[in-house]
Amino acid sequence: MKTSTSSSKASAYSIGVDYGTNSIRALVADLRDGREVGVSVFPYPHGTDGVILDPKDPNLARQSPADYTEGFVRTVREAVRAAAKNDRAFRPDLVVGIGIDTTGSTPIPVAKDGTPLALLPAFRDDPAAQAWLWKDHTASKEAAEITAMARRMGLPYLEWCGGTYSSEWFWAKVLHCKRTAPRVFRAAYSWVELCDFVPAWASGALDPLAMKRSVCAAGHKALYSEAWGGLPSAEFLAALDPALAELRGRLGAEAVPSDHVAGFLDKTVAKKVGLPPGIAIAVGGFDCHHGGVGAGIRPGRLVKVVGTSTCDLVVAPKGAAVTAVPGVCGVVMGSVVPGVYALEAGQSAVGDIFKWYVDRLCPTAFDGKNPYAALEKEAVKLRPGESGLLALDWNNGNRTILVNQNLVGLLLGQTLYTTAPEIYRALVEATAFGARAILERVEEYGVPTREMVFCGGLAEKSPLLCQIYADVLGRPVKISRSAQTCALGAAIFGAVAAGFYKDVAQAQKAMTGTSAISYKPAPKAKKVYDRLYALYRRLHDAFGMPDAAPAAFGDLMPELIAIRQEARR
Amino acid sequence: MKTSTSSSKASAYSIGVDYGTNSIRALVADLRDGREVGVSVFPYPHGTDGVILDPKDPNLARQSPADYTEGFVRTVREAVRAAAKNDRAFRPDLVVGIGIDTTGSTPIPVAKDGTPLALLPAFRDDPAAQAWLWKDHTASKEAAEITAMARRMGLPYLEWCGGTYSSEWFWAKVLHCKRTAPRVFRAAYSWVELCDFVPAWASGALDPLAMKRSVCAAGHKALYSEAWGGLPSAEFLAALDPALAELRGRLGAEAVPSDHVAGFLDKTVAKKVGLPPGIAIAVGGFDCHHGGVGAGIRPGRLVKVVGTSTCDLVVAPKGAAVTAVPGVCGVVMGSVVPGVYALEAGQSAVGDIFKWYVDRLCPTAFDGKNPYAALEKEAVKLRPGESGLLALDWNNGNRTILVNQNLVGLLLGQTLYTTAPEIYRALVEATAFGARAILERVEEYGVPTREMVFCGGLAEKSPLLCQIYADVLGRPVKISRSAQTCALGAAIFGAVAAGFYKDVAQAQKAMTGTSAISYKPAPKAKKVYDRLYALYRRLHDAFGMPDAAPAAFGDLMPELIAIRQEARR
Repeated sequence: MKTSTSSSKASAYSIGVDYGTNSIRALVADLRDGREVGVSVFPYPHGTDGVILDPKDPNLARQSPADYTEGFVRTVREAVRAAAKNDRAFRPDLVVGIGIDTTGSTPIPVAKDGTPLALLPAFRDDPAAQAWLWKDHTASKEAAEITAMARRMGLPYLEWCGGTYSSEWFWAKVLHCKRTAPRVFRAAYSWVELCDFVPAWASGALDPLAMKRSVCAAGHKALYSEAWGGLPSAEFLAALDPALAELRGRLGAEAVPSDHVAGFLDKTVAKKVGLPPGIAIAVGGFDCHHGGVGAGIRPGRLVKVVGTSTCDLVVAPKGAAVTAVPGVCGVVMGSVVPGVYALEAGQSAVGDIFKWYVDRLCPTAFDGKNPYAALEKEAVKLRPGESGLLALDWNNGNRTILVNQNLVGLLLGQTLYTTAPEIYRALVEATAFGARAILERVEEYGVPTREMVFCGGLAEKSPLLCQIYADVLGRPVKISRSAQTCALGAAIFGAVAAGFYKDVAQAQKAMTGTSAISYKPAPKAKKVYDRLYALYRRLHDAFGMPDAAPAAFGDLMPELIAIRQEARR
Repeated sequence: MKTSTSSSKASAYSIGVDYGTNSIRALVADLRDGREVGVSVFPYPHGTDGVILDPKDPNLARQSPADYTEGFVRTVREAVRAAAKNDRAFRPDLVVGIGIDTTGSTPIPVAKDGTPLALLPAFRDDPAAQAWLWKDHTASKEAAEITAMARRMGLPYLEWCGGTYSSEWFWAKVLHCKRTAPRVFRAAYSWVELCDFVPAWASGALDPLAMKRSVCAAGHKALYSEAWGGLPSAEFLAALDPALAELRGRLGAEAVPSDHVAGFLDKTVAKKVGLPPGIAIAVGGFDCHHGGVGAGIRPGRLVKVVGTSTCDLVVAPKGAAVTAVPGVCGVVMGSVVPGVYALEAGQSAVGDIFKWYVDRLCPTAFDGKNPYAALEKEAVKLRPGESGLLALDWNNGNRTILVNQNLVGLLLGQTLYTTAPEIYRALVEATAFGARAILERVEEYGVPTREMVFCGGLAEKSPLLCQIYADVLGRPVKISRSAQTCALGAAIFGAVAAGFYKDVAQAQKAMTGTSAISYKPAPKAKKVYDRLYALYRRLHDAFGMPDAAPAAFGDLMPELIAIRQEARR
């Protein structure tokens, strides 16, 4: 299909498929204006809300690969049907491309033919044979080893991923599998990121050696960089474990951005989803990166995908020299927009903290049809500081800027009168303070932010959260026009890979925008939050690093009480 | 009535009336064996669970004096009726004495004739004219001033009450009233502790100048000591505020122990409660002190009244030289057992913390008929350390050993999988750690504890709490035979004041005992709790004192996680 910029061109569509933590979402987008003409959602059937847990180990989080393929078929089929129903101009043969984004690092052990081990009878019930979901933290020891080894060998691998390798990432998980589930490790011919698996599977070409690998996944999580010739050296991997060095040769050769074609829609899959075969499928990417594109990312505009966790993205101006940023987990060329540096940061849990709170601690009075809305209704009435509460947002560790999973949550300031909405608000504020720590760090290293565009479920659902973030971060918050930015970003890549648009910027111009709603920082609230943030940072810095310097805390509770009393006056 | 030690003596009874935070309880006790033959409970009608609150100020806690007189009549009348029904030998004329215990310091502003100002139409709705409940913390600034003034003037007043005057105590509250509610202060001819008001009112002799004052209340809360001639000097009080020095002369002369007679049952009151007039009424005392007597306190045996808050009591051997103990809020001659030194300590909130948690945060699943039982059922299954949680029990400040109300609660260790019963258990453990800090401090100063006797609502209701305390404190926990130790102690004082027994020890021998249930420390649990307590103390010491030295906390969360992982193996 030829590139065209004319707005009068004939109807054309692309499909974005977004693999989240709890469900899959497929979206059919009109390529002329980004209009979303068909959507379908599929909650993963396995585990608890789609996540396989271990009651004995809160660090374990896996997913069943069977859910991924079933979910693709179901959501794409339903989204296509919905498009046909909603848009008279739609026809399956007008779909030019498909893009896919997923959580990550979510590596899957696969057999020689690319079949996930979990789909083989011998491994069906083995947790180690499933997909290792991004938020699995069982590999914290291995992550620390990788960090130590890179330092010891004087290798530059970690500079570009915040200085510390994470237990959420590829090599740590694979090494942990080798150590704790050797049967699975031995049976695995290769390991495939979820975002590489889905395009390969949908193209009917699962060969792990031949399949296209995403630079987004490889660059951010597997230490891939052209600067050192791709994946980390065999010497380095062998120093960790000789088996990793062997595995290196079975992980594919080149990693490419998502404007590349991964393959073409397989006949069997096409039939199941009601599309013609042969549609271009873009190389996959991570949800937040595609979400950045779907939200219209550009220099000076921080895009924050606010969901179970957050992903914060900024891109440097074209040609700008970006140095490595301590604690910022990814500075990768081409991982968001091909050809420019993207900085990726993130908070390990945001919506997940609220969900935990609502599910496990929500009081009866708020357990109506929508406990979130009930809590938010009360929490929004509170003034900043009035609850006297201060929390650390570390229930799932801290990805940026501490890069430390060996952390836990903290709530401080409870009296005998503290209410459930007060705690809810304190948890929202804690995540805003975490966001501020990220923004300040990125700015320190010369990438400024003038405004923020939020997308993801919470951006839509929680005006409370958006206003608190505007107040705490002191910048306006705009909301992405699309409610499904990740899937829209994936659809954009589907269109660009298919050649319908010449590049991401051109596609963004046509297909993205922000909604009429925006949140401006309130100076009075900002002032109170500046004081609370100072306290947050003291706790953050003292509890967040194993070798933190001694600090005095005798004034902290009195200061918190003083803020509370002033706010109540 | 003559003193007698014969067990064959005729039936005789006394009545104990216990004024708690949320309700009043009257008990008719058989003087031969302590058997409880009639009980009645009256929840205070005013406020929230009997406490008048201010939504704008969580420090405010008042009670209506009208509830005190109404409750006396109702509970004594009903307890007498119940005794007549339960015990064929009972007759109202066999009641030899009445004893009264109350919360404290709970001072009440009164008119010249002793009438509480709150009962006068002009002051009915003024919060400052009500009783200032023990847990009212509005006077923290005034308490700090009193501490500073005593230090500046080199006066020994504070040595015997832990070195710091508390916002819960008499002078701080009166001074705060002078400053913030001058109309009430001017109208108050005198101020009367609740435990002095009730006996005086029941005797029909309310004259504030003539009424007997309890050495328990005065000694522990109003800086009364024979060592400096009674109440603090007029010079000291004048330095705080000249009006306090004037008030000093209107607070009664001598303060005496509860084996003294305060008066005799007034005709009008007697008629209302169904008793003959003229029954001896003992000088009042604080609930926990009377509870200590009802629980059989003696050297080496710590008595802990575990209710909304706790009161910890130990008595020194007769004639022992007891020095002042830093942070222990009361070392007073004769305040528990006449003639020996008693040490009083206490935790500002225990049951109150659990109640807060259950009322405000209890999840739906646990909101059955008895959410406490449901939470306890799950919490008891958990192993020490397994939750990974650690809390500070400061939701209502810290009475002993920090003597600091300017503190707030802290919960640390939450993951995304933390459950409601885990938090419940962590809160129970936090109060046990607080109890351990008290016990260690008292032992450091030469008053050893071999065993503990628990009484109060939680001692009966929570085997979980009792076992955790035994494990954390490393001492066996026995349970008082009586479920209403405070009221039983009050009844004992009624009998001793009336002369039925020659002294408290003789009455205790006949009337008190421990139940068959006891809790032994489990060495394995103790070992885990020793590690957790070390972490608790680090937080306690760093956050609990305004001038605490800097401390390093980078290892604390990892250590907590390590304990959790070991416990789960």
